[in-house]
Amino acid sequence: MNKVLVFGHKNPDTDSIASAITYAYLKQQIGVDAEAVRLGSVSEETAFALETFGFEAPRQIDRAASEASKVILVDHNEKQQSVDDIEDVQVLEVIDHHRIANFQTSDPLYYRAEPVGCTATILNKLFKEHSVAIPKNIAGLMLSAIISDSLLFKSPTFTEEDRKAADELTEIAGVDPNVYGLDMLKAGADLSSKTLEELISLDAKTFEVNDVTMEIAQVNAVDLSDVLNRKEELTELLTNVVSVKKLDLFLFVITDIINNDSIAIAIGEKAFSAMTAFNVVPANDMAILNGIVSRKKQIVPVLTEAFK
Amino acid sequence: MNKVLVFGHKNPDTDSIASAITYAYLKQQIGVDAEAVRLGSVSEETAFALETFGFEAPRQIDRAASEASKVILVDHNEKQQSVDDIEDVQVLEVIDHHRIANFQTSDPLYYRAEPVGCTATILNKLFKEHSVAIPKNIAGLMLSAIISDSLLFKSPTFTEEDRKAADELTEIAGVDPNVYGLDMLKAGADLSSKTLEELISLDAKTFEVNDVTMEIAQVNAVDLSDVLNRKEELTELLTNVVSVKKLDLFLFVITDIINNDSIAIAIGEKAFSAMTAFNVVPANDMAILNGIVSRKKQIVPVLTEAFK
Repeated sequence: MNKVLVFGHKNPDTDSIASAITYAYLKQQIGVDAEAVRLGSVSEETAFALETFGFEAPRQIDRAASEASKVILVDHNEKQQSVDDIEDVQVLEVIDHHRIANFQTSDPLYYRAEPVGCTATILNKLFKEHSVAIPKNIAGLMLSAIISDSLLFKSPTFTEEDRKAADELTEIAGVDPNVYGLDMLKAGADLSSKTLEELISLDAKTFEVNDVTMEIAQVNAVDLSDVLNRKEELTELLTNVVSVKKLDLFLFVITDIINNDSIAIAIGEKAFSAMTAFNVVPANDMAILNGIVSRKKQIVPVLTEAFK
Repeated sequence: MNKVLVFGHKNPDTDSIASAITYAYLKQQIGVDAEAVRLGSVSEETAFALETFGFEAPRQIDRAASEASKVILVDHNEKQQSVDDIEDVQVLEVIDHHRIANFQTSDPLYYRAEPVGCTATILNKLFKEHSVAIPKNIAGLMLSAIISDSLLFKSPTFTEEDRKAADELTEIAGVDPNVYGLDMLKAGADLSSKTLEELISLDAKTFEVNDVTMEIAQVNAVDLSDVLNRKEELTELLTNVVSVKKLDLFLFVITDIINNDSIAIAIGEKAFSAMTAFNVVPANDMAILNGIVSRKKQIVPVLTEAFK
């Protein structure tokens, strides 16, 4: 039971998978029996990155306490995004770049959050602080995480620190980030083969603000019509999810990764007030969110403010 | 309104005052308009450290929002320990070494907590990370904070990292920590001149675990009889405080800094279960806690576990 499990959030994105693998590797180098695991399926984008740099996907778990008493969270801190039995294990460390909420410990811990675009950017610093060299394939994974979180360096979440990390990691990984990065994003943005159930759960996160419970799902798309052709069925499905999960809002965001805009579909009692918080009026539950691509930086803060 | 206020917790101890001054200095060096302030009176121990190294006490504030929209918390994160209007300002950063609880933000932030004995130990790393040299008098303050939090390097909270920081800071400050440190602790441990009201509020913190509200106050003493001679009055006062503040528990801890033990007086509905959590049975509301000197490491976790 000395093993320490390292994992990102449920519905893992490329940063959650890559950062779990990366930080487990770093901890191993400094003598910790760390294992990267994941809390959900690997997306096609992530699979593309793993395959390119020669990694297997980490093992999937649903519960942690039966096999480890200590865990490290990467890329998240809110308990509803974490392993189901998070209350039954000790959180040793958190490495994250999100707001802090629904997080509480009884003991001091190592908590490292920075307002940067990607967990991998912080991990890049930690390798230096521990004087551990980053292997070529790990650098490739870390770079993939930054490309994913920043939509190839274009999201408003992308900071100078992310730029610096991306440059250093590009050097080590030996790939052209603009060529490799677009290929990776496209691998994850082909929505034509996805069921609607998959689309709304691939990258969905639940948030609570006061008494408002909302789920915000986001997909990247190259061709928006892959989704919009199925709009009617989609609305029906979302309405059903809102009812079953007792949500006040489901916001489904389809982000055009070529033009850097999004289309949002909002369902639930708070749908109208959510849309007006973005200064748009929904037509058929839908509106264009001009220039909005980042859930964390451009969507969650607006809704938190609106519902607080 | 670009000013950023930097402050430690209410009822500030030496670490809270020293770390506010120190981090404000570091932020100023990297171009931030930062000002150290404090949320309560300076203790005699802290006054001794400030005078030794040539500092004035920072200005005291009760509210922040009227003069700054952004703040940095050092040495705390729980909102009940922070400035009264903490909900009305943006927390830009937290530098801390405590558990995380009652803390929430709507935006990503820089949060740096490490499981070490003193905030100054983390600040010592941040100076290096920013390549800023620590001036002699700032090093003296930082060393004072480590001596204070570790009871001259003897508390179980004192880690290898604190030892390393203390050694480096001793080198810069040019004082003998064992001589200077004992003088500083003694300056704060002379309780003979203190009123009972002062004793129970000098270093008091409120905690909530589930529905249990508890206040835990701690004083350092060289001569325990300074307090125990006034035990009857003290119990009366604590009973009154418990009633007025609607507390479930007031735990008053008198720590013998020479022998490294404590005497605890527990008042309130949860007094008995609090004492039994330490495997002691109170006599006249009082018990000896052998080898216990650290509220954070040896008291709060035990009570959190007991009441959760």
